[in-house]
Amino acid sequence: MNGNKVIDAGKPEAGLLKDGERLDDLQRNGYRIIQHSEKFCFGMDAVLLSGFAGAREGDLVLDLCTGTGIIPILMEARTGAAHFAGLEIQEESADMARRSVLLNGLEEKIDIVTGDIREAGHYFTSASFDVVTCNPPYMMGNHGLVNPEAPKAIARHEILCTLEDVVSQTARLLKPGGHFYMVHRPFRLAEIITLLVEYRLEPKRMRLVHPYVDREPNMVLVEAVRGGKPRMTVEKPLIIFREQGKYTQEICQQYGF
Amino acid sequence: MNGNKVIDAGKPEAGLLKDGERLDDLQRNGYRIIQHSEKFCFGMDAVLLSGFAGAREGDLVLDLCTGTGIIPILMEARTGAAHFAGLEIQEESADMARRSVLLNGLEEKIDIVTGDIREAGHYFTSASFDVVTCNPPYMMGNHGLVNPEAPKAIARHEILCTLEDVVSQTARLLKPGGHFYMVHRPFRLAEIITLLVEYRLEPKRMRLVHPYVDREPNMVLVEAVRGGKPRMTVEKPLIIFREQGKYTQEICQQYGF
Repeated sequence: MNGNKVIDAGKPEAGLLKDGERLDDLQRNGYRIIQHSEKFCFGMDAVLLSGFAGAREGDLVLDLCTGTGIIPILMEARTGAAHFAGLEIQEESADMARRSVLLNGLEEKIDIVTGDIREAGHYFTSASFDVVTCNPPYMMGNHGLVNPEAPKAIARHEILCTLEDVVSQTARLLKPGGHFYMVHRPFRLAEIITLLVEYRLEPKRMRLVHPYVDREPNMVLVEAVRGGKPRMTVEKPLIIFREQGKYTQEICQQYGF
Repeated sequence: MNGNKVIDAGKPEAGLLKDGERLDDLQRNGYRIIQHSEKFCFGMDAVLLSGFAGAREGDLVLDLCTGTGIIPILMEARTGAAHFAGLEIQEESADMARRSVLLNGLEEKIDIVTGDIREAGHYFTSASFDVVTCNPPYMMGNHGLVNPEAPKAIARHEILCTLEDVVSQTARLLKPGGHFYMVHRPFRLAEIITLLVEYRLEPKRMRLVHPYVDREPNMVLVEAVRGGKPRMTVEKPLIIFREQGKYTQEICQQYGF
């Protein structure tokens, strides 16, 4: 996954690619994804979130801040969910996501909507999703950014979407008892948990992701249930590397190596 | 530490011990502690909390739910704090704690107060401590307890002291900028963080304690700062055993082996 593939202009996918874009093999169901190296490419956080999130047979799933659609595409490959919607504010990313959906023949399973999360109620019915997923911008504000309108800045910084926007809209769109899955940075854990509880998305499961077993975590995976009872499971640590450059067995499995 | 020592009735400490009590060597400064196997003995949680907690030269430290005084005694050995107070509701435990203080010659450094945490304002001045520590009862309610008045039940269940009692009293007793250190169970993490934030004790540092590297954590160590700014550090996992019956190097260091 994430390996840059050179596209043969004679192949059918060639018509779906625009200038500067690349096609990456997702190692699942033969699915591929269109990305642009200078705009935004998915990272390990998206892969880990798609493995951490669950969806049952027939579920309706919404991915907020879907970017190039990596989460719904990966989750379509590994769950029995009936349908996925992906909401993305940047038309350029949403357009790439739509073309990846076509490329993989998933147009009946995944809809990509261009729109602002703060107006999610315009696009989706309240309490209509069994599962909401989100890999939101992690960084607060836009201090020090030379170009806060750049696609990468919008994807990484809370310029057009704050953590509270994500949590409050999720609470509105999830069915009672529905599940929310998010990946974020551990330094914001207190705020994450406080907001979830405030919006009655009870934190039920958490997993910290550490680059090495003896390092601080750099990601946190959280599952919350709308209206759930208090009591959470903190899982065993998820370790990325067993030694320099060598993934642990669990990471190899998640990536399908 | 925690190894049961048989007391020679001819030694000076013999006069400080009551029927059924035992004396354990703490492996620090030659300090020992009086415990009663059938009432309550300190566990690894207390040792880890005393290692996780910090106190600077000259600090005033309060330990809530001090039990037999293990936290102030261990912290006196490894910090430069000026004075420790320990508050304990069970007179029998407080009495053991006072005799351990005498046994170790610490009567100028550690005061043990018998009293109810919910009335801590009767015993201590508001905003007077630099550091508050607590190893509180972990279990909610007293459902299913045959004997909820038993010393072990009171130490382990929220019969006489809830998590909110601990947090609200800590917020009142700490100086602005003062530090709170607590050990608790991970399944209550959402409630812990929510209460800390509600009482303006900002979570700043957290460490999860796992019996083995591939197991769920069974303890969580938390540091909060009264009036601190949001942003927390989640530390590398603290692993107890490297294999069955063999402590990791870090645990051996903490125990002074």
